[in-house]
Amino acid sequence: MDMQVLDGIRVIDLTRVLAGPYATMVLADLGADVIKVESPGGDEARGFGPFKNEVSGYFQSVNRGKKSIVIDLKTDDGRELLLNLLEEADIIAENYRPGAMNRLGLDYEALHQRFPRLIYAACSGFGQTGPYAQRGAYDMIIQGMGGVVSVTGEPGRPPVRVGVSIGDLSASLFTAIGILSALHVRNRTGVGQMVDISMLDCQVALLENAIARFDMTGDIPEPIGSRHPSITPFQAFDTREGWLMLAIGNDSLWARFCGVVSMEELVEDVRFRSNALRTENHEALESILMGVMLSRTAQEWMALLEPLDIPCGPIHNVQDVVNDPQVKARDMIIEMDHPTAGNLRIPGSPLKLSDTPSRISEPAPDLGQHTDHILSTVLKIDASEIARLRATKCIL
Amino acid sequence: MDMQVLDGIRVIDLTRVLAGPYATMVLADLGADVIKVESPGGDEARGFGPFKNEVSGYFQSVNRGKKSIVIDLKTDDGRELLLNLLEEADIIAENYRPGAMNRLGLDYEALHQRFPRLIYAACSGFGQTGPYAQRGAYDMIIQGMGGVVSVTGEPGRPPVRVGVSIGDLSASLFTAIGILSALHVRNRTGVGQMVDISMLDCQVALLENAIARFDMTGDIPEPIGSRHPSITPFQAFDTREGWLMLAIGNDSLWARFCGVVSMEELVEDVRFRSNALRTENHEALESILMGVMLSRTAQEWMALLEPLDIPCGPIHNVQDVVNDPQVKARDMIIEMDHPTAGNLRIPGSPLKLSDTPSRISEPAPDLGQHTDHILSTVLKIDASEIARLRATKCIL
Repeated sequence: MDMQVLDGIRVIDLTRVLAGPYATMVLADLGADVIKVESPGGDEARGFGPFKNEVSGYFQSVNRGKKSIVIDLKTDDGRELLLNLLEEADIIAENYRPGAMNRLGLDYEALHQRFPRLIYAACSGFGQTGPYAQRGAYDMIIQGMGGVVSVTGEPGRPPVRVGVSIGDLSASLFTAIGILSALHVRNRTGVGQMVDISMLDCQVALLENAIARFDMTGDIPEPIGSRHPSITPFQAFDTREGWLMLAIGNDSLWARFCGVVSMEELVEDVRFRSNALRTENHEALESILMGVMLSRTAQEWMALLEPLDIPCGPIHNVQDVVNDPQVKARDMIIEMDHPTAGNLRIPGSPLKLSDTPSRISEPAPDLGQHTDHILSTVLKIDASEIARLRATKCIL
Repeated sequence: MDMQVLDGIRVIDLTRVLAGPYATMVLADLGADVIKVESPGGDEARGFGPFKNEVSGYFQSVNRGKKSIVIDLKTDDGRELLLNLLEEADIIAENYRPGAMNRLGLDYEALHQRFPRLIYAACSGFGQTGPYAQRGAYDMIIQGMGGVVSVTGEPGRPPVRVGVSIGDLSASLFTAIGILSALHVRNRTGVGQMVDISMLDCQVALLENAIARFDMTGDIPEPIGSRHPSITPFQAFDTREGWLMLAIGNDSLWARFCGVVSMEELVEDVRFRSNALRTENHEALESILMGVMLSRTAQEWMALLEPLDIPCGPIHNVQDVVNDPQVKARDMIIEMDHPTAGNLRIPGSPLKLSDTPSRISEPAPDLGQHTDHILSTVLKIDASEIARLRATKCIL
């Protein structure tokens, strides 16, 4: 069997719902042994639909390849078990509100003193510091506060959220980057450290040139539909059947495109002679092109434009994506056999490494599926002691 | 001076525009020595507005902390110089269309044979394999093909793009994860490998539970404005002044919220008694709440809701974000002094590591600013040889 990136790395995973679990899923895909420590009620995402034979699709999509142990951290025995697991671990990850881990006596300072090699990753709405640190957060609140909603949607229409949970998922990816960074440092120094990721910080980082645009011009960027703020025509057009994304980034592509649509006169039109002019007069150009593009289907346009290397593409829905030949060829849709839900399709890993490929082999665990296994193999606790612990209700 | 994560790691950076440069910016923020190798015309993003004293804000926002050397890789001397630089490097990163590096004799197989420790990271529209591998791609085309556009925006309205370049930036973050993964493996094995990241793959990975929803129910997810598909009320509401994001995730929050708006009767209303019922009857609930929410300003609502821990928040534009006290407290807006553009504000790094913090100290380089410095310090080439190379036009 191939080597994997994180062979021999063990993660004690206290994260719940989405931002934290997606980060530790990336680590699991890379081969880490991720032990999901759940409270007796379980990760609340187990209750999020849709369901198939009572198995949550939401939970399945971000917890594959992990093990589940149920420990009640509100009991002394439970906290002791967690500390024993940390003795055998490289990384702890959590996405509680700042302060919650302190109340359990499991804050970074305490753990770092006891386990100097341990890497402690915290992913929260606003980070561990600053005036909003103690506030709770959801993806939608963070999308609203982070600026992305203010530049998404149509001008003059109600706000829309980004349809994927970009507030959570960008924090997940930065959390994974932070953990791998700390691991690289520990490979040299032998010492772990704290990784403090804030969902709001990550949204700010994604704004990149929107901040430069505001800073240099004083103009506040606004939603502009499918259009690009400074390249034209670079937007979605309706066709006789389906929408087409058209991305004409320079004058030579523009001239070629005008040829395809048999409107060579547009090339010399004073309103459209350069990208800057096309952007300035985008409304006039749009109303001309909206008529033109309706004359063929999106498929027909692509058949004409692609051979000339004019960038264009369809707008795919989720069904189209799942069935797309490129997506399939890259193993980006994985089929798994779940013991009770049966066949499930979930996204694959985009981390394609030539020598240490990602491996997604196990579906997400049932609640407490690995409690006994972890206690007996990782902590070498015998069956009678496990029975005693279970009787005290510190494990399930 | 504090240690940084990637101290002593050198990146030869052939990337241009956005997806690649943002990935190597993350490495530069972590302390890597990133040498941006530009062709004589320079990264085309240097020509993207807005400008301040002819300095591109777009370019500045993703190239801070890098060095620039201009090498014409179409010349034999230029390619020889690049190979000499790779001898001194840990990582090469590129985001050309698959095939371009082969034509330069700089493909992974050739470089891996010559420099077995070198990590080779390629970030492309569709990846190095599969039927679309050879196609060019732009963020907007990938957003359209990757499914995110199909779930963003208002029902029945024209498609909108996500206002930040999620197609590029999610690939940047996975590229950084892939590079750090390969570095971790090399720390053990001494051998580098290829990291092959596809923008389309990354969009599929971000769809996570949308794929599960389609797979389990057969329903194709659609755009639903600011609303959450399975939690209600969880959306933006217009108020007397400004929009408010409201995120009421369970029945106890719902009861508390009904108290705040003095509509206790809604708690017992048979249409709204559970989250499932509220979601089923979201149109009826929306029309009631739309009226209610108009009675106060967003600020007034937040002053009432926040003390009760009812999740809510404003919709901030880019100016609000730049001036937000939490964003400032977390050093997420950095001011830099650029020699010709003067004071610039750009986003900070969300990678907050306790012992090896990110450091953003230098603005993005002018074209070829470090050509002589790199040739003389990294390659120990003397001034007369640099002059000879410059005369042959293989460097600028």
